[in-house]
Amino acid sequence: MTRTLELSLRDDFPGMKTPDGAPWHYLDTAATAQKPQTVIDAMTRALGSDYATVHRGVYARSADMTLRYEAARRRVAGFLGGQEDEIVFTRGATEAINLVAQCWGMTRLGEGDRIVLSTLEHHSNIVPWQMVAERTGAEIDVCPLTESGEIDLGALEAILTPRTRLVALAHVSNVLGSVLDAKRAAELAHSVGAKLLLDGCQAAPRIAVDVAEIGCDFYVFSAHKLYGPTGIGALWARAEILEDMPPYQGGGAMIDRVTFDRTTYAPPPQRFEAGTPAIAEAVALHAAIDYVEEIGLDRIHRREAELVARLRRELGKMNDVTLFGPAESAGIVSFAIDGVHPHDLGTILDEEGVAIRAGHHCAQPLMDHLGVTATARASFGLYSDDSDIDAMLAGIERTRRIFGSSNG
Amino acid sequence: MTRTLELSLRDDFPGMKTPDGAPWHYLDTAATAQKPQTVIDAMTRALGSDYATVHRGVYARSADMTLRYEAARRRVAGFLGGQEDEIVFTRGATEAINLVAQCWGMTRLGEGDRIVLSTLEHHSNIVPWQMVAERTGAEIDVCPLTESGEIDLGALEAILTPRTRLVALAHVSNVLGSVLDAKRAAELAHSVGAKLLLDGCQAAPRIAVDVAEIGCDFYVFSAHKLYGPTGIGALWARAEILEDMPPYQGGGAMIDRVTFDRTTYAPPPQRFEAGTPAIAEAVALHAAIDYVEEIGLDRIHRREAELVARLRRELGKMNDVTLFGPAESAGIVSFAIDGVHPHDLGTILDEEGVAIRAGHHCAQPLMDHLGVTATARASFGLYSDDSDIDAMLAGIERTRRIFGSSNG
Repeated sequence: MTRTLELSLRDDFPGMKTPDGAPWHYLDTAATAQKPQTVIDAMTRALGSDYATVHRGVYARSADMTLRYEAARRRVAGFLGGQEDEIVFTRGATEAINLVAQCWGMTRLGEGDRIVLSTLEHHSNIVPWQMVAERTGAEIDVCPLTESGEIDLGALEAILTPRTRLVALAHVSNVLGSVLDAKRAAELAHSVGAKLLLDGCQAAPRIAVDVAEIGCDFYVFSAHKLYGPTGIGALWARAEILEDMPPYQGGGAMIDRVTFDRTTYAPPPQRFEAGTPAIAEAVALHAAIDYVEEIGLDRIHRREAELVARLRRELGKMNDVTLFGPAESAGIVSFAIDGVHPHDLGTILDEEGVAIRAGHHCAQPLMDHLGVTATARASFGLYSDDSDIDAMLAGIERTRRIFGSSNG
Repeated sequence: MTRTLELSLRDDFPGMKTPDGAPWHYLDTAATAQKPQTVIDAMTRALGSDYATVHRGVYARSADMTLRYEAARRRVAGFLGGQEDEIVFTRGATEAINLVAQCWGMTRLGEGDRIVLSTLEHHSNIVPWQMVAERTGAEIDVCPLTESGEIDLGALEAILTPRTRLVALAHVSNVLGSVLDAKRAAELAHSVGAKLLLDGCQAAPRIAVDVAEIGCDFYVFSAHKLYGPTGIGALWARAEILEDMPPYQGGGAMIDRVTFDRTTYAPPPQRFEAGTPAIAEAVALHAAIDYVEEIGLDRIHRREAELVARLRRELGKMNDVTLFGPAESAGIVSFAIDGVHPHDLGTILDEEGVAIRAGHHCAQPLMDHLGVTATARASFGLYSDDSDIDAMLAGIERTRRIFGSSNG
């Protein structure tokens, strides 16, 4: 198993240490990632010795911070393969999708238009579209999954109609780890003149993303899942789409000129960033991307794929375990143990220093599809290694003993 | 001048230090406040050894972080005099006002309804209402100022009609420092059945606020102006108002149950907090409020009032200086020097290590009213002292020499 230990990065993460020095097996990176010291240091400097507001100050410290803030925007653009003025900073992916729903959806969709989502979407890629549909009269079509739990692109092709205006899909499923063939999804969406939005929350930390190569129209992610700070995320959208979108929130920084008679707005991306932005968070996100890219997403993906393969192999040997999702999963394994509620499993594992997630993972329609109310989910990060799997498997054994069940 | 030095707090603020140890005279606290080390430490811990997501984890670290996050909400509630479930975390005051505009305004306002703002409002308390007015057919009335630059409550009384549904005013002006008689404004608004929203961005860091005592309906502030982190702010609204408001953004954490047929929503405040919140920022905001309240807002206000009085007195002696706003200003002094553009003044002061703000301060209608395109603005914080004023006055002298003008 040493091959997965080639990267010994755990020491970079203060969140992986425990007060008593006991190992902590953090298998909830799909919920949120721990942060390397460089990200925390960037935050500390930005809130401390470098701190000033952006875009407004006539003094050097503010001009410097403005450069840092805009450098972070450029860094995000480079990371996704987009252009600097195509990046809008948001609170997170949820807000980014809501921004598209409000500014693009509310103005572009009408009675009878169709939005395609999939069965495995996170609530943040369902509810904003339900809200838009309710107000505009647009309707939602649901693309089913293949038997192994991937978005069925064959079915997508059949669902698309000339009235389909938007296809909004998870690039990687937060429950199953299924990886979308995003390029094919873009071709299909565009074949009927629809736009493609990708929810990149689980993809951005796990696979290399290039929006130009994919050919999508909107891409969103959250910094806190990318080893970055809370409180910030980003929307990438094609320049010509952003250009045509009306403002999102009103306030300072997004205006050109305000009078009580008439207000005119700034060009993108400023038009979509009202008020003092998450300055320190942008700087820390920059540091997170530097950290991740220095390791390399290909290496991270390979490492997580090995861990997924081993965990699925081990769980697959157990007769009382149901494994959900495809074998080729990006860093995420959902499963159930007969007769053990996922919450109980999570609680017992916690006593062993193993942190997994148990619940509906903000994907209730997928739970309905799987015929469960919750799954247990282990998700890996770039600091994960075989000791985490070993501890989890030991914890599962202990859970079985407590519940008096045996392995088949 | 030693009386204003009773608090020697500057050492608590790493942002007040310079690489070469030269003094930095930060007079732009109305734009954003520097952060005490305790706030930065709280952020560091929250992103490091304490880090986990909230509201979802079955493991102890996540449960602990949830307690911290909700303790921050309680702290904010206590700070404002409201109840815990009346506090919604937002990105900042701008988003808080936009939330009220979208969730309350869009559903409660219609053709012919009236919204009252004042001439001195920040763009963040103008543009969201213009957007709502445009979509609902509501109209905006503008309450004028007294000669000294306070919101004219006599005029407000005359403007109010039974069709007035909302009065939205700055508790303290970000340009003039004028303090609103908020309690009287609430009485007036309520006398016609209107709600009162107070923009507390400049008030929360400068005067003690008690929403129950004031009797307002909505109160908003930004953490970064309250010596807290960027990326977070809060909305307080009366429980019965929040209860009746539809959701803001759609996503995780704000739902009760999601199906593709029908989604139901969580009660407030969760209904208004979609997605992973600004976890570390909430914890750091808690630390900021602890810090501010340990010093005491009454002491902070007294100290800033002394500094304002001295600066206005010194500037008032100069024949080429126009002072804007009332003598009784909360920590903020706007002025102009004949023949010197505020930006030039700001640039020259910067060379002397004095950071002021020059511009329209996101208050263009007020600039139009004052007959200027920009003002120079010095704003104090709890770390400000007479040395800042000394340095600024010296810088003004130097500016005069450069511009070849003399003091009258």
